[in-house]
Parts: sequence; structure tokens; C-alpha cells
Amino acid sequence: MPEVTNDIPDIVISRLPLYLRALSYMSEEAGKVTTSSHELGQRLGISSAQIRKDLSHFGEFGKQGTGYHINYLIEQLRQILHLKEEWPVALVGAGFLGHALAHYQGFQHRGFQISWVFDNDPEKIGIDMKGLVVRDISEMSEVIKEENVQVAIISVPASAAQDIADQLVEAGIHSILSYAPISLMAPECVEIRYSDPVIQLQRMTYYQDSE
Amino acid sequence: MPEVTNDIPDIVISRLPLYLRALSYMSEEAGKVTTSSHELGQRLGISSAQIRKDLSHFGEFGKQGTGYHINYLIEQLRQILHLKEEWPVALVGAGFLGHALAHYQGFQHRGFQISWVFDNDPEKIGIDMKGLVVRDISEMSEVIKEENVQVAIISVPASAAQDIADQLVEAGIHSILSYAPISLMAPECVEIRYSDPVIQLQRMTYYQDSE
Repeated sequence: MPEVTNDIPDIVISRLPLYLRALSYMSEEAGKVTTSSHELGQRLGISSAQIRKDLSHFGEFGKQGTGYHINYLIEQLRQILHLKEEWPVALVGAGFLGHALAHYQGFQHRGFQISWVFDNDPEKIGIDMKGLVVRDISEMSEVIKEENVQVAIISVPASAAQDIADQLVEAGIHSILSYAPISLMAPECVEIRYSDPVIQLQRMTYYQDSE
Repeated sequence: MPEVTNDIPDIVISRLPLYLRALSYMSEEAGKVTTSSHELGQRLGISSAQIRKDLSHFGEFGKQGTGYHINYLIEQLRQILHLKEEWPVALVGAGFLGHALAHYQGFQHRGFQISWVFDNDPEKIGIDMKGLVVRDISEMSEVIKEENVQVAIISVPASAAQDIADQLVEAGIHSILSYAPISLMAPECVEIRYSDPVIQLQRMTYYQDSE
């Protein structure tokens, strides 16, 4: 593998998980052994040239004629994205969304496991969520520090999200996925991503009406 | 407003909803009247040059010295993204995630309203979800056609998602937001976006370990 430079555009990084998901599907569900950038691109709605260019940042993974060995490429992508070991995740918020996340099948074998759930609602503390006992949010900082947790998911109302984010950052969390519909402030060394259905929907309606 | 060309990069479009959300926050929560690309950029972690460049695709919204009038820019962005009227949304899947979406506060005043919920589970059909009665999925195509629904959200398990997507497309849906952790196949005229927490988390862990 050629030396990897640090200035790979984030837009390239953002596509690697999509490649990984599609390749895993091809391997596990469709039982395929090899694929091509063309086939992968068709599946994802991304051009084959784009896929080849994206992957070329990290090395030579395919061969002219035979294409990519799916399992090999999966392993390489897992290594690039630091998914060789499972990241334990702290989930904050045990409402409907917290329940949905705790029951989400998509985490399995993809590098993450929700290992703790916290809430401040006395009616939720102590209940079982898919094998995890909801813990009092007052214990959150201590658990995160003791267990050296790096990744957290925020599924609390917008009004509480910034306070929770502050606590998470202070306790040592480096990556936050937030479902609250507000932009959070955090130091630059902390990565924050948002899951806001309206942001996604608005991006699509731009293309409607204009047809 | 100068003539808008059709070849505005999708990456630019993808940032407009973020600007809109931040501007709405400034106006509603912080009570601000004007802002600058610098302030907006700080809030979003995007450079002020990028913001000015993105907005310049659509016209001249700010003035040297005074910056942007927030409410004016909000109105312009809502027009660009086709949000002047509310899009009714069909939600498919009334599990934990469906419940979370039905209760999500973030849709309000942002251009979308979940107006129908469908499920195939006899135990869910007929129940009330935040004022909406869950309807039998067998009625879905007819409702979508009759009401000319354009936008749908899929919150069913991965195994059912492609079948649901096929039915939605056949009934006339143009924009789909899917929470199922698989890539869906659809005609090119249909926009599909995905909300998969693992895709977001994997994009962040790339940047961890390497510090």
C-alpha cells in the first residue's frame, strides 16, 4: 500500500462507508466473490470512475479484468476506517428514538455496539432496552471516563442537546452522532455528525418541482 | 436574482439545508436580525468563503458591511429548496423508529408533515401515533396516488425495504428517505437518501486513532 497522505478530502471519506455497506451486502446477501467498479457504481448511483479514483487514494485494490475481490476490499476498508475492533458506544436518551437505536440491526458486525444507555427520566432509568439497563445520566461522565468511551449518540430533545454534548466532550468523547435538530458547538478536535431527517428531505425537494 | 443554472453541484445543495437550519435558530432562538458569513460559518464549522461561494450560485443575498438579513435569506432558501408549501409525507413502518419520527419535533415549520403512517402488522394497524391512525399497508398505493404524495420515509426492516421502495415508486413517490441499512434500487428520476447511523459513525472513526 502506498503511503497514505492525510489530506484526503472528507467527501472521499464520506463515500467509503457506502462502498463498505454495498460490498458487505454483495458478499453476505448475494454470495458474490468479486465485483467491478462498474457494478458497485450501479448499485450506489456513483460513477465507476469516481469509485476507482476514491479507492486509489489508499492503494491498488482491483485488477484489470478481474476487478475487486470483495472480501479483501472489505477488510481493507475496515482497516482504513478503523473498524477492525468494535467501538463501544454510549447512547444518551431512551425515548422512542433511543429504543429504535437500541433495536437497530444495522450496528451488528459493522464496527459499533451500543454498550450503555443514559437518561434523566426516573421512569426510564432502570428499564431494560434490548439487554441494556438504562442508567442515570448523572453516572454518564464517570462511566465514559472509566471505560475510555470515544463514541456517543445523542437522542435527546433539542433543548437538552448542547448540555449533553458539553458533558460528553468534557468526559472524553471524540465522535458524536446527534439526532437533535440543532447545530452543536464543540472543540475542533471533536467530530460531530448529524442525523436530521429534514436536512435530508430538504436536499431532495430542491430537485422536485423543477422537473 | 440572476438566472439559476441547473448544474449547481449537489454538494452545494446539500449545505443549503444546514444554512437554513442555522439561520432559523439564529432568528427564532437567539432573536438575531442580521448575520455574517463569518458568524454562520463559525456556527456550522464551514468557512465563510465557502458559504459566500455557495450562496452566490443563487444571487446576491448579503451586503458588504451589513451582512445578511436573516429572515430574508431564510425566505430565499425556502424558495430555492421548494419549501414554501408544506410537503405531506407518507411514513412506512410504525415500529420504534416510526414512533420516533412521528413524535419528532424537527419537522415543524421546516416544510414537511407526516400525514400518513402505514404498517403491515395487524397489532399496529389502527393504533394512534401522535394523532395519526396507522393504516394497513395494502392501502398505501391507493392513498399515495389519490393524494398525489411525492415524499416518503421508509422505516421498515432491511429485508422489507426494497419491496416497499418498489411500491412507493410505482405509486408515484419521487423522494424517499430510507432508514433501512441497505442500498435501494430505483429509477434515476427518484431521489433516495439514507439515514444510517453506522455510515455516519464510520465516517468519523476514520479520523480517530490517527490523532
